[in-house]
Amino acid sequence: VIVPHDGDTWSEPLYAASHTLNGNGEMTGLEWIREAGLLHGPIGLTNTNDVGTVRDALVRHAVPSGRSGSVSWALPVAAETWDGRLNDIAGGHVRPEHVHEALAAAAEGGVAEGNVGGGTGMICHEFKGGIGTSSRVVEAEAGGWTVGVLVQANYGRRRLLRIDGVPVGEAIPVSEVPSPIAAPGPPPGAGSIIGIVATDAPLLPHQCRRLAQRASLGVARMGGLGATTSGDIFLCFATGNRGMPAADPRATAATTIAIRALVDRALDPLFEATVEATEEAIVNALVAAETMTGHDGVTAHRLPHARLVEAMAGRPQPRRQRGAVRRVPA
Amino acid sequence: VIVPHDGDTWSEPLYAASHTLNGNGEMTGLEWIREAGLLHGPIGLTNTNDVGTVRDALVRHAVPSGRSGSVSWALPVAAETWDGRLNDIAGGHVRPEHVHEALAAAAEGGVAEGNVGGGTGMICHEFKGGIGTSSRVVEAEAGGWTVGVLVQANYGRRRLLRIDGVPVGEAIPVSEVPSPIAAPGPPPGAGSIIGIVATDAPLLPHQCRRLAQRASLGVARMGGLGATTSGDIFLCFATGNRGMPAADPRATAATTIAIRALVDRALDPLFEATVEATEEAIVNALVAAETMTGHDGVTAHRLPHARLVEAMAGRPQPRRQRGAVRRVPA
Amino acid sequence: VIVPHDGDTWSEPLYAASHTLNGNGEMTGLEWIREAGLLHGPIGLTNTNDVGTVRDALVRHAVPSGRSGSVSWALPVAAETWDGRLNDIAGGHVRPEHVHEALAAAAEGGVAEGNVGGGTGMICHEFKGGIGTSSRVVEAEAGGWTVGVLVQANYGRRRLLRIDGVPVGEAIPVSEVPSPIAAPGPPPGAGSIIGIVATDAPLLPHQCRRLAQRASLGVARMGGLGATTSGDIFLCFATGNRGMPAADPRATAATTIAIRALVDRALDPLFEATVEATEEAIVNALVAAETMTGHDGVTAHRLPHARLVEAMAGRPQPRRQRGAVRRVPA
Amino acid sequence: VIVPHDGDTWSEPLYAASHTLNGNGEMTGLEWIREAGLLHGPIGLTNTNDVGTVRDALVRHAVPSGRSGSVSWALPVAAETWDGRLNDIAGGHVRPEHVHEALAAAAEGGVAEGNVGGGTGMICHEFKGGIGTSSRVVEAEAGGWTVGVLVQANYGRRRLLRIDGVPVGEAIPVSEVPSPIAAPGPPPGAGSIIGIVATDAPLLPHQCRRLAQRASLGVARMGGLGATTSGDIFLCFATGNRGMPAADPRATAATTIAIRALVDRALDPLFEATVEATEEAIVNALVAAETMTGHDGVTAHRLPHARLVEAMAGRPQPRRQRGAVRRVPA
Repeated sequence: VIVPHDGDTWSEPLYAASHTLNGNGEMTGLEWIREAGLLHGPIGLTNTNDVGTVRDALVRHAVPSGRSGSVSWALPVAAETWDGRLNDIAGGHVRPEHVHEALAAAAEGGVAEGNVGGGTGMICHEFKGGIGTSSRVVEAEAGGWTVGVLVQANYGRRRLLRIDGVPVGEAIPVSEVPSPIAAPGPPPGAGSIIGIVATDAPLLPHQCRRLAQRASLGVARMGGLGATTSGDIFLCFATGNRGMPAADPRATAATTIAIRALVDRALDPLFEATVEATEEAIVNALVAAETMTGHDGVTAHRLPHARLVEAMAGRPQPRRQRGAVRRVPA
Repeated sequence: VIVPHDGDTWSEPLYAASHTLNGNGEMTGLEWIREAGLLHGPIGLTNTNDVGTVRDALVRHAVPSGRSGSVSWALPVAAETWDGRLNDIAGGHVRPEHVHEALAAAAEGGVAEGNVGGGTGMICHEFKGGIGTSSRVVEAEAGGWTVGVLVQANYGRRRLLRIDGVPVGEAIPVSEVPSPIAAPGPPPGAGSIIGIVATDAPLLPHQCRRLAQRASLGVARMGGLGATTSGDIFLCFATGNRGMPAADPRATAATTIAIRALVDRALDPLFEATVEATEEAIVNALVAAETMTGHDGVTAHRLPHARLVEAMAGRPQPRRQRGAVRRVPA
Repeated sequence: VIVPHDGDTWSEPLYAASHTLNGNGEMTGLEWIREAGLLHGPIGLTNTNDVGTVRDALVRHAVPSGRSGSVSWALPVAAETWDGRLNDIAGGHVRPEHVHEALAAAAEGGVAEGNVGGGTGMICHEFKGGIGTSSRVVEAEAGGWTVGVLVQANYGRRRLLRIDGVPVGEAIPVSEVPSPIAAPGPPPGAGSIIGIVATDAPLLPHQCRRLAQRASLGVARMGGLGATTSGDIFLCFATGNRGMPAADPRATAATTIAIRALVDRALDPLFEATVEATEEAIVNALVAAETMTGHDGVTAHRLPHARLVEAMAGRPQPRRQRGAVRRVPA
Repeated sequence: VIVPHDGDTWSEPLYAASHTLNGNGEMTGLEWIREAGLLHGPIGLTNTNDVGTVRDALVRHAVPSGRSGSVSWALPVAAETWDGRLNDIAGGHVRPEHVHEALAAAAEGGVAEGNVGGGTGMICHEFKGGIGTSSRVVEAEAGGWTVGVLVQANYGRRRLLRIDGVPVGEAIPVSEVPSPIAAPGPPPGAGSIIGIVATDAPLLPHQCRRLAQRASLGVARMGGLGATTSGDIFLCFATGNRGMPAADPRATAATTIAIRALVDRALDPLFEATVEATEEAIVNALVAAETMTGHDGVTAHRLPHARLVEAMAGRPQPRRQRGAVRRVPA
């Protein structure tokens, strides 16, 4: 299991980097992450119209009024996907207090999946989407590192959905399970998947970027194209190094710090782990999601579990049990 | 003069691109501009803590509640610099109605400079900073294009300030005009300059990126270093092409559009124009700004005009009157 | 069919851009393509050690001694993959005359696949690799554009190979068909795939970049990870605009040119076409390649065709015949 | 003084990164440096047409025939500027043996400046250019690090040349000292400056990138615009970390290594040092260069030293002796 960050994430940043498959989306804070290679603070995921509200609430979490905070300024990460088919997105329903409640409620342990948080109104491959997570552990001789992926999955066309290579979208077409996207042609805001990749390997920022890019390969294997209406942005952070001072220059006296870096050779298993965990996180979002009817009467149907099992049964050969990476037991 | 955009900026985007000199700052909307090469909607400039408020207010301007707007979703550009030495930045004083008022009041004509708008609480080279603008017109045989630059200037150390090569910061040291940045060492949030470069040349997105990068050269000539506490982000847009449909896919039926592009050879005068206009926009921000005492009693002194004239008088040779670009008459 | 460039590719460049999945490789000329968005001249594909020889030979093709050429200088594209397991790569066997012979022999029509040219010594998913090509045509209402992909495929592990989702690599393991990569662990230079994406759509440079990135999604669907020893670099160029002057400033008098651009909405079918054509180009490289024993006695076995048919037979459902894109008839 | 690399640069790479001001140039090896953050091997500087020859010769230096080398493959850095006004650039006069001779002759100590090596045929601000170097040491409390810059300076217009802010190009116009660039308008290949930034600070790759970008600010202060015919590419490497294994996966068993990183706060003095050293390296290239008449009878005149002293005499105020950085005594 990934060692959670047990300190103050604002004053003890982590190495991080991002990758964009298609940029029709928003993730605030990326300019600073690209420059400094450091992620400060918790990550907010919400809908397109309220990403600013969440972003500013995170600033106030970092720098409370009165300047008693641990840092003087903050450039937080808040990301979004468009839930306007199911949610009254223009209604301004996400407010700063929801951010503060979420931060207060954050805890170790399992992550809720499906119709939760920013993932509540998601549509994925024209089924009900949502939040999904998955992780992989690389073999001990490769370092034994864990890679975890969390997605807010809101992208993709039905006919393109594949699970472990099986064309599930073709097997369960919209003629069988209706699509919430009724109109012909590419729907407005049809897309977007936000992926957060976390690892306990001691990656440097440029190595985090390489893992973030591999999340896009997992999306590709599920049938994602990075459609032009899609905001497919991936952020990777690594907890394997600690002690980097905050951007706030008051935070340190020393000019150098001792850290560790993964050697390139050891990255390949992490690449494979990231691709697989991204795939499985999307599957988990689809499987955990519940059918939902939105504010305008549009219904997004869940992926029918029995039909999924049936479609997967035809898979010609079981995947080998032991590759370079393995699933983390539940 | 640059032909102002006379249409709906949300449904008629413009080619655009950005460049970051140092990314310790925020400009929302950049992922989408990088991907599509298009700027949708007006640009908001504000302080660090309220950039989300401004960004979400711009979304509501683009997509009013009830979905009667011209587009279905928006990823607006809102940028910031840190004014916490003079402003009660944690007070949440910027509210959505201020954005709507600013949009309603927007008009053609001269741009107010100095202590206005997002530039109210700026500090630049340890003098009072603010908003500044400048423009250049390239020779008729080079196309006669105009380049205009607007800066929100909040960066830099006194000792490094140069104007047209003259070490003005050395000539008017902090022993003569005190610095608002009292503490030794690099101050928190010391930095940041946001620059908006606009041209009526028909630039493609990758050409806009090249102009945006030249703004960083203008900052360099003024004595900026892109300090690590600085968010020096430049956005360039071009009004020379119109008719590009909005990201919203409902906006068009055709699959191609006719546009024009500048040939590479014609870019050099625009590069020079951008560098010069950036320099002069910073000078104008410094000259237009007024001495201000902030909420905590810190005073940022204006650049003393008489002393500036005196310092510049020693300049060895007048610059030639006719280069590849010329100043736009006031 | 893509309209071939019927003019002088040195003086009539095309819009182009690249994407790198993993950069352990060389493709010269990319800095200039990134800057100007233009590809000048033919593209050379060769092995790692001789890429400079090919690059300089292309310069001499562009700018013959005596300066009678159409341009004054050239920054050509030459790319490589490492064939040192089968080829005496340090022997310097590629010489300038081979480049000139290849240029003289270039002709319209079908492209040879398998063990040809720079692809002669390739190994792909631990089978014999090589050159492969494929193309797709988008529906008429989406513009009817063609996308063609050529790969020099030299990447990947056996166990990860998938064709149209079927785990072919698991079905034909190294215990059945030996791998040329005998040593345990990631082999030196194991990787690399170069992909050239060509389209007759009138793409702007930033749109070419988006297509180039989609080639990486096709590699992902085949089982590629962008391994850290891999140089996975993709170049996309578009023939839909002509008349852009060469970088050489003597080539034009006008400062602007009239061009066309694809609207974003019309890109999605091209994205899907690029992903599919990349997959099929890799399959074609594998299927066309012949078993080869190299200079050191290492044998790379071809993908056994009968076994491939057998493995694919288990595929649960046929892919639908009509999607957004269709195969180009042979 | 920077501690020179006392080991095998092929098997003991250094953290590195690049920045491009204008990409009309070639520097091979950049894709791999961007990916891995590591520079392997010596750096070759030559002319535009022979950069492939130099690149392949460096491969043969890294991986001698017979595979007895320390690495299995190499992606070396070879960069160029265009010297076709003075040199018979199409003549193929640079041959592999020149590279091997240069490598054999490499030694510690002072670097020859002016008309030497790849800098022999350079033209800079329409004076004779060449190779120049300079360095700065930051204050002890900032770490005491050294930054050294080497340029191959071949860019710029006379009228824009400034030295320490003084408009020297205006003071010594082409009517006084003729320009080797006779034709009106932007000349073919007029541009290019290659800059190599080296430091003994323990920079990570993303920090090297930041220093490389600051070299472009030094060029800006001298009057460079990153003209569209210019290949202005900067590479920064850091010797402050050692022990990173080569890309070749045979080179190590461990999966992590211990390194040091500079904290962000300590970067600002290095930024200032890089800007100043780049400026001075260009000045040194100009001052060290000797008047040269080329193969076609074109003469590039040196910057006249007495006139330079005269022009600089008018500078209004001496620069302060003690800033954040200081010059390295000769």
